[in-house]
Amino acid sequence: MPADSRERMVRAAVALFRERGYAATSFHDVLDRSEAPRGSIYHHFPGGKEQLATEALRWYAGRVASALAGQSAADTVALFVTSSRDALVASDYSSGCAVAAVALDQEPALDAVVAEAFTGWRQALATTFTRDGATTAQARRLASLVVAAVEGALMLARAERSPQPLDDIARELRSHLDTVLPGR
Amino acid sequence: MPADSRERMVRAAVALFRERGYAATSFHDVLDRSEAPRGSIYHHFPGGKEQLATEALRWYAGRVASALAGQSAADTVALFVTSSRDALVASDYSSGCAVAAVALDQEPALDAVVAEAFTGWRQALATTFTRDGATTAQARRLASLVVAAVEGALMLARAERSPQPLDDIARELRSHLDTVLPGR
Repeated sequence: MPADSRERMVRAAVALFRERGYAATSFHDVLDRSEAPRGSIYHHFPGGKEQLATEALRWYAGRVASALAGQSAADTVALFVTSSRDALVASDYSSGCAVAAVALDQEPALDAVVAEAFTGWRQALATTFTRDGATTAQARRLASLVVAAVEGALMLARAERSPQPLDDIARELRSHLDTVLPGR
Repeated sequence: MPADSRERMVRAAVALFRERGYAATSFHDVLDRSEAPRGSIYHHFPGGKEQLATEALRWYAGRVASALAGQSAADTVALFVTSSRDALVASDYSSGCAVAAVALDQEPALDAVVAEAFTGWRQALATTFTRDGATTAQARRLASLVVAAVEGALMLARAERSPQPLDDIARELRSHLDTVLPGR
């Protein structure tokens, strides 16, 4: 069994969750999308669909968190909004946030990994805001605002089939950060 | 057939969508919750579940839009966040936004009513912001930010079983509005 079939399945699961969430994604869909051999499922994921979903969300959340680290507050927020926007528009409004899609499915077995993903992003952003001069509490609040606004704007943009909500929040978040973190 | 069974079904559908979305809500669930007689379904909603859902979302969206009208920008935003927060906490984190829950289910037949609901809220907020001194474009952007932040924070708060994301965005939105609409 090729070593990379596991990674292909994880990536395929992320892509499918972004399009349709957890409940509507079957193992069969993941195999089809990843072109992994049928035996791959329980070879790589003996814990079944929950295990695959947990690993897929961790991989996706980790990739986003890495992208959010190491830049200025303004650049980080711009990147967060723009990458979400570009993926949504490029997919003709079919590919949203994998974590949000799974969160809304409310699968109890995945509650912890969903919360962990959102918390990880907020912590990555809060670290950046603190470095740029925010107090600890202010950094937490700003991080909540940025993650919430991006997730909500993705939902609006998808429903309206227009990037405008994401463009709108990008500009207002930038304006707010410019005001409250003047020292950066 | 009692005249109010129709309204009870609409309200029950809203409550169920807030808890579990459209796909996971059956007509049987709506009858159970509303205690409406079984024959009510096609008597009141000959168009089936889609018709019920369309009317339920319009009723819910209209009620929210009415609540958003007629107050100052700061009071409107505080009310929007607080009412979402209180409903979520009072339901032990089970009752979110009916429109968001249906939006994430991506039922093509309901796309238009979902977009109409979000647009209606943004327009109600934009009207308030314009009255408080915002330009037309700025009012649109601020309205996008507020609706997106509330929807996203509801998702975060539900996933984390904590009102903190909603409290965080309430404070940051207030601070941003105080800065950009100083004339109010």
